[in-house]
Amino acid sequence: MTTVLTGDDLAGALTALRARVPLVHSLTNVVSANFLTNVVLAAGASNAHIDNAHEAAGFARIAGGVLVNLGTPDDGTAAAFTLAAEAAHDAGTPWVLDPVGVGGLPWRSALAVDLLKFRPTVVRGNASEIIALAGLGGATRGVDSSDDPAAAVPAAVALLEHATAVSASGPVDHLVGRDPDGAIVGVRIAGGSDLLPRVTSTGCSLGGLVAAYLAVAPTPLVGLAAAHAHVAVASEIAAEKSSGPGSFAVEYLDALSAVDPATLAERARIESVDLVGEGVNR
Amino acid sequence: MTTVLTGDDLAGALTALRARVPLVHSLTNVVSANFLTNVVLAAGASNAHIDNAHEAAGFARIAGGVLVNLGTPDDGTAAAFTLAAEAAHDAGTPWVLDPVGVGGLPWRSALAVDLLKFRPTVVRGNASEIIALAGLGGATRGVDSSDDPAAAVPAAVALLEHATAVSASGPVDHLVGRDPDGAIVGVRIAGGSDLLPRVTSTGCSLGGLVAAYLAVAPTPLVGLAAAHAHVAVASEIAAEKSSGPGSFAVEYLDALSAVDPATLAERARIESVDLVGEGVNR
Amino acid sequence: MTTVLTGDDLAGALTALRARVPLVHSLTNVVSANFLTNVVLAAGASNAHIDNAHEAAGFARIAGGVLVNLGTPDDGTAAAFTLAAEAAHDAGTPWVLDPVGVGGLPWRSALAVDLLKFRPTVVRGNASEIIALAGLGGATRGVDSSDDPAAAVPAAVALLEHATAVSASGPVDHLVGRDPDGAIVGVRIAGGSDLLPRVTSTGCSLGGLVAAYLAVAPTPLVGLAAAHAHVAVASEIAAEKSSGPGSFAVEYLDALSAVDPATLAERARIESVDLVGEGVNR
Repeated sequence: MTTVLTGDDLAGALTALRARVPLVHSLTNVVSANFLTNVVLAAGASNAHIDNAHEAAGFARIAGGVLVNLGTPDDGTAAAFTLAAEAAHDAGTPWVLDPVGVGGLPWRSALAVDLLKFRPTVVRGNASEIIALAGLGGATRGVDSSDDPAAAVPAAVALLEHATAVSASGPVDHLVGRDPDGAIVGVRIAGGSDLLPRVTSTGCSLGGLVAAYLAVAPTPLVGLAAAHAHVAVASEIAAEKSSGPGSFAVEYLDALSAVDPATLAERARIESVDLVGEGVNR
Repeated sequence: MTTVLTGDDLAGALTALRARVPLVHSLTNVVSANFLTNVVLAAGASNAHIDNAHEAAGFARIAGGVLVNLGTPDDGTAAAFTLAAEAAHDAGTPWVLDPVGVGGLPWRSALAVDLLKFRPTVVRGNASEIIALAGLGGATRGVDSSDDPAAAVPAAVALLEHATAVSASGPVDHLVGRDPDGAIVGVRIAGGSDLLPRVTSTGCSLGGLVAAYLAVAPTPLVGLAAAHAHVAVASEIAAEKSSGPGSFAVEYLDALSAVDPATLAERARIESVDLVGEGVNR
Repeated sequence: MTTVLTGDDLAGALTALRARVPLVHSLTNVVSANFLTNVVLAAGASNAHIDNAHEAAGFARIAGGVLVNLGTPDDGTAAAFTLAAEAAHDAGTPWVLDPVGVGGLPWRSALAVDLLKFRPTVVRGNASEIIALAGLGGATRGVDSSDDPAAAVPAAVALLEHATAVSASGPVDHLVGRDPDGAIVGVRIAGGSDLLPRVTSTGCSLGGLVAAYLAVAPTPLVGLAAAHAHVAVASEIAAEKSSGPGSFAVEYLDALSAVDPATLAERARIESVDLVGEGVNR
């Protein structure tokens, strides 16, 4: 089995990100709003948080990529999520659905399922959220992941009915999408740090970074993988310089900024996932 | 007079926190949402911020502890506060009321008084807020404390009509509750740092930490004291390594994570408050 | 041409800020809420974020200065903005309008224009926002500035019909106001750091700092200039100690706190702008 993506693909995406500085339109939760913007800026892109129903659709049409994150929805922002997703779909703006808390919380779970009709370019979540959204069951415990990402691969593949690429984050991230011939393919990305889940919004901000990469990458799977690899490499670098979760968050932003395409290509630990064992592509 | 609580009580609570990783359900203000979550994570627990009326009650029933913080209420979150407090009360989930700004702001003051009917496990505030909530007058100046915590002890005792334990934060924190025989007892916890009030949300995030400890401590007073002592010790350690409020906030998160039960027991400066002079227990 | 403002004017404003610790009432966006409060605290003032319609007017009457920032408005906060601006105007509380995103986003643009009737003491924005608000055209790209602040001077002067002083932020900040004789004058403030726009909310938090300085400065122009110079000097100091945007944000807060009046007077790079070339005061 050949590797679906190479380090050069990731480096090319980062080169494009730095050259084009895509503008992300984020509709994210109040816990992550500041950190997510700093992550997107540190990586080399730009972000505007606009989640009112008056402006969400218009901005989604002109943004480079849109993130809809279900972390702290209310009636007002939920309306904006729908308008932004619909506008992104209609305008061809790539958009990311981050189904935070889906599974354990019925109201937002229904909202997430409803948003699938606008065909997100990417669904990014932790394993339990991906499993829950795919309707395969699973229970979520707040916003923490309680399932192994590898176990979410069948659910991620099932979600390809609605999305172009899907990722389940965890100690080893698992991503699925389609290759240029339309075949379903999977990759796993190792790395990261035990400190990542000790800092809030590292997952949510990855969603913002995915939206940024989707604006510049040749395919959704390349953009999704580049965002995951950028985070994995930067967090490894940051962990070496940190003495706890506070200093890690600071070093992480510095490292997201410092990582260059050559470093990304060299340090990214990406390999293919054999999906035949998952009942795909036989 | 014997000491109501010992360092071993605090160490036991921290050991339980780290072993059980309780899940806090926070309904907190937008200023503190990120920092509070990082504080709770750094200390060793988990947090989910859910403040919409659709989901607040359901989550309060399954969380380990709930925090209702009145810092930036609006009509939507105020409804969620009431639903969460009622559900926590009905389900037996311990919950914390942080009456931010009560006294100087009539709308939220009425809301705080109304929430008392759901019998918060703990009321945690600064001195002026505790005095105001107890109906003893006092005026609040934004979210800063303008009163000495020692002066709030009679008000804190008065609030024991509604809550099981009450704390007034300040240079020396003052806490009141009941001992196993039902007698009202008080403790003061010294330490901390002059830099604590120079960083926003250190008080609000203490409220989140109290909710985490309530989920695992043998009594509300032990949980409340452990949270205060954890903050006092961590902030002392952080202050030694800081050159200003920015670096203090970073070091504080690292220290919250680094403090272990033995350190907490050794460094906590806790002593009993003689409440007889306050007209209690004569 | 004489210098309109001197380093001593700036030092005097900072001395007053530290002595009086003014209380800012901020109605700001969710991205900046935490960082803005930390900036205001680090500089030496105090902040309360109150953006609900029940409390905004009452608090604006008693605060030292008010900030209305249009970054993430919704129907509820927009109502609070109007109430706070009206109350500040009626009570004589100085207030700052930060027209984030105005120009590219029609709904909030109409809101910003409507707020001008309450005569903001200061309008502070980036160049494209100032140009857009002045009705001279210009398009905004999210919350980033795409125009040179020098190009915004005519627009800033035009806004003096509605406000007492106006600033356009950028690599070199440009400020306009009136001297004691009522003549329109301009100053530019150099300094800062390339890392400032790599950290979110540095501009928004400057707006909070302006509100703090307006509470203690002899004239709005002095207060506006002191806030800009404080930020420029602190960010220069921070940049020398930083290795990226994460560490810069930390060092920036430390430096805002460490800068004293003598340092501010010595390091501030302020000079007059010749407005005759702009068609003013001929």
